[in-house]
Amino acid sequence: MASTSLVFASRAEHRAWLASQSRLPAGFRVGTCALEFTPVEAPKPGRMNLSLVALDRPSAGFAACFTRNAFPGAPVLVGRRRLAGARLGALVVNNKVSNVAAPGGVEAAEQVCAEAGRLLGIPGEEVLPSSTGVIGWRLPVDRMVEALPRAAAALQGETVLPAAEAIMTTDLYPKVRRADLGEASLVGIAKGAGMIEPHLATMLVFLLTDADLPREALREALAGAVEASFNDISVDSDTSTSDTVVLLSSGRRRVGADAFRGALRRVCRDLAEDVVRNGEGVHHVVRAAVAGAPDHAVARAMGKALVNSPLLKCAVNGNDPNVGRIVAALGKQAGATGLALDPARVRIRLGGETIFEDGAMRLDPEKERRLVAHLKGAELYASAPAADGLTFRPPVDYPPHERSVELEVDLGAGGARCEVLGADLTHEYVTENADYRS
Amino acid sequence: MASTSLVFASRAEHRAWLASQSRLPAGFRVGTCALEFTPVEAPKPGRMNLSLVALDRPSAGFAACFTRNAFPGAPVLVGRRRLAGARLGALVVNNKVSNVAAPGGVEAAEQVCAEAGRLLGIPGEEVLPSSTGVIGWRLPVDRMVEALPRAAAALQGETVLPAAEAIMTTDLYPKVRRADLGEASLVGIAKGAGMIEPHLATMLVFLLTDADLPREALREALAGAVEASFNDISVDSDTSTSDTVVLLSSGRRRVGADAFRGALRRVCRDLAEDVVRNGEGVHHVVRAAVAGAPDHAVARAMGKALVNSPLLKCAVNGNDPNVGRIVAALGKQAGATGLALDPARVRIRLGGETIFEDGAMRLDPEKERRLVAHLKGAELYASAPAADGLTFRPPVDYPPHERSVELEVDLGAGGARCEVLGADLTHEYVTENADYRS
Repeated sequence: MASTSLVFASRAEHRAWLASQSRLPAGFRVGTCALEFTPVEAPKPGRMNLSLVALDRPSAGFAACFTRNAFPGAPVLVGRRRLAGARLGALVVNNKVSNVAAPGGVEAAEQVCAEAGRLLGIPGEEVLPSSTGVIGWRLPVDRMVEALPRAAAALQGETVLPAAEAIMTTDLYPKVRRADLGEASLVGIAKGAGMIEPHLATMLVFLLTDADLPREALREALAGAVEASFNDISVDSDTSTSDTVVLLSSGRRRVGADAFRGALRRVCRDLAEDVVRNGEGVHHVVRAAVAGAPDHAVARAMGKALVNSPLLKCAVNGNDPNVGRIVAALGKQAGATGLALDPARVRIRLGGETIFEDGAMRLDPEKERRLVAHLKGAELYASAPAADGLTFRPPVDYPPHERSVELEVDLGAGGARCEVLGADLTHEYVTENADYRS
Repeated sequence: MASTSLVFASRAEHRAWLASQSRLPAGFRVGTCALEFTPVEAPKPGRMNLSLVALDRPSAGFAACFTRNAFPGAPVLVGRRRLAGARLGALVVNNKVSNVAAPGGVEAAEQVCAEAGRLLGIPGEEVLPSSTGVIGWRLPVDRMVEALPRAAAALQGETVLPAAEAIMTTDLYPKVRRADLGEASLVGIAKGAGMIEPHLATMLVFLLTDADLPREALREALAGAVEASFNDISVDSDTSTSDTVVLLSSGRRRVGADAFRGALRRVCRDLAEDVVRNGEGVHHVVRAAVAGAPDHAVARAMGKALVNSPLLKCAVNGNDPNVGRIVAALGKQAGATGLALDPARVRIRLGGETIFEDGAMRLDPEKERRLVAHLKGAELYASAPAADGLTFRPPVDYPPHERSVELEVDLGAGGARCEVLGADLTHEYVTENADYRS
């Protein structure tokens, strides 16, 4: 999915590359700050980051996609209203508390927007709120209102990197991708590491551009790009209540609509792969390319069934080519949805090796060794024993490479195809999520 | 789901109880043996168990349900043919190799049946084969044919326990449940710990009875019992290629059809809960009771969405009442399937505590402490640090109690309900499945 094939030997190398990606398009400023708070629901003090993204002049050029989860967060409810508004002038984003299913959530989000607008000299209705973190907790609105002037004082027009860092929760590293289009540019940042199987949108993604295109062109381009990027990934099959992708343009530079659509699609696909590669506890990215499907929905569903199979995910984690689990996962999905699949026409390849053909597995000890080598080659890191025996933490906080486990399936049942990205299931994922809120 | 509430203080206590459950109905004999083999696909020698279950006289009274996975194993293909046959006289079961997607799988299964039939003096077509284990490997037919006379020599008519033990793979302990119906009886055994989200059947389950009922009555009773037991559970959402439930009657004792149906349903539900409680790496059984659904399929799907959410499973593992993940999982399922759900009408309780009502979470630090206590009370065991820092093994090989995490959801959208059983996601599950075949 990613258009690059980067290799990083150290955190410093990765940071230098991120800095090179982060220059803001014309007309934008970014400021962040941190605050301490204690949720009223649980006696666990925490630290929250606030990010402000401000346009020099409010713009009619904006687009957004939101989660299809039936319990959308308050910022999603507010964001959907904002889509009908004439202009947008700023984004205000917090981590730590997602403001989902919390009493008075919409009012709390509007209060934060009103204060951000006051500081920027625009109405609160021209500010789009976005939150990520624990579900069910109330936003510490008073603390946030108190802190916002510090974020406003930090506004600068050079780099998006402070916001890419401030929106992180369990992310190991910031995610920034850019496209340059003559004098114009597009820069995108993403937050997301767990609760990732977007439907129609994903996590928090903010795409900033100075490309001067009509609102409708921006909205069409975003819908298309999201469909072919964030909707094709899954870290853990859990669709978030907060998934949000926002595209905001300052309209300062002339760009052709086609060139912009292509650039947007590329940036979205790169960010989507970044989100998977930085998924919670991910040791291996798995690229499942499904072809020969009767339609695109089936191809995507079969790809999702592969990357969401806990048994296959664990086998990949262990560099164990237990390829029978690939067949089981495909068969589960086909059986559960009544898809008539002829095993004799199905072909499966892993790391370029044919492992299933003519209705049976094609395995031998020599091929097994090559499959192990392929899995090891795609490993981002191996688990390090935990100091306390139980609490596993990833030993790297940058992506060492962009290699993936390459899984190709031809269903022999049509002409549609889809490429889905997923990941393995590891001790680090269990550790992260057995006590996420602590 | 289980009709009992057993507590076991030791493996010895559990074994004594198992022995008390294991008396064979009239007309059955059971024999087992073990053999060594090396698969041709991978240089990993293994030990396989063979189990023979023989009727004194072949019987027309048998029923079976099989997996809906679209890549069914060879024993499933053969078993479906056997359903049309006049009589069944024996079952032959092996662990370690599932005979799924292996070249020549059907022929291999028939060869084993023919040899078992020869030893018992019946045609191979009256023997039902069943296999569980690695997918894609070929059965070591020659070694199995060589070993079968030892299983036949071990046949005895007292206890089913040797077969309950011999069919295990990653199971920590044998699973046996019984019902006594006057002079008649029904005894069931189950194998299954991972790749468990049955559709229309499950894992390997063998139900033996001497109840004299017509074939059609047995088949109807089995279909109903499976629907209300094995189809309502999930350990890891992976539907096996080998799921098989067989009911075999010697027809020696008179029993009313209604009484038998009730007993069969109870035994199936008890075995289904046993399978979850003994699921790979399971620390907590989660009982998700979903009511207020528009129909039964929705109630079941919402229950499955809860027990299959990796994030919720990890939180339960950590005794962490991160209850926002319950809302996220319900909302994902409703959103993905287009179910119009009004959050204001949804009510959620955990361990008897109301946690969501009137569209918002209802949380405070005192309730949080009670929720933690409920989760800890339902814990079967805590992880013990691994000797090598990475390889986690359960510290118990018996079920210490039958308590569950009690999750109740009222969708406020109708009158249908379903109770689904699932489990948490743990380091032991990851360890087990990162290198299952080693």
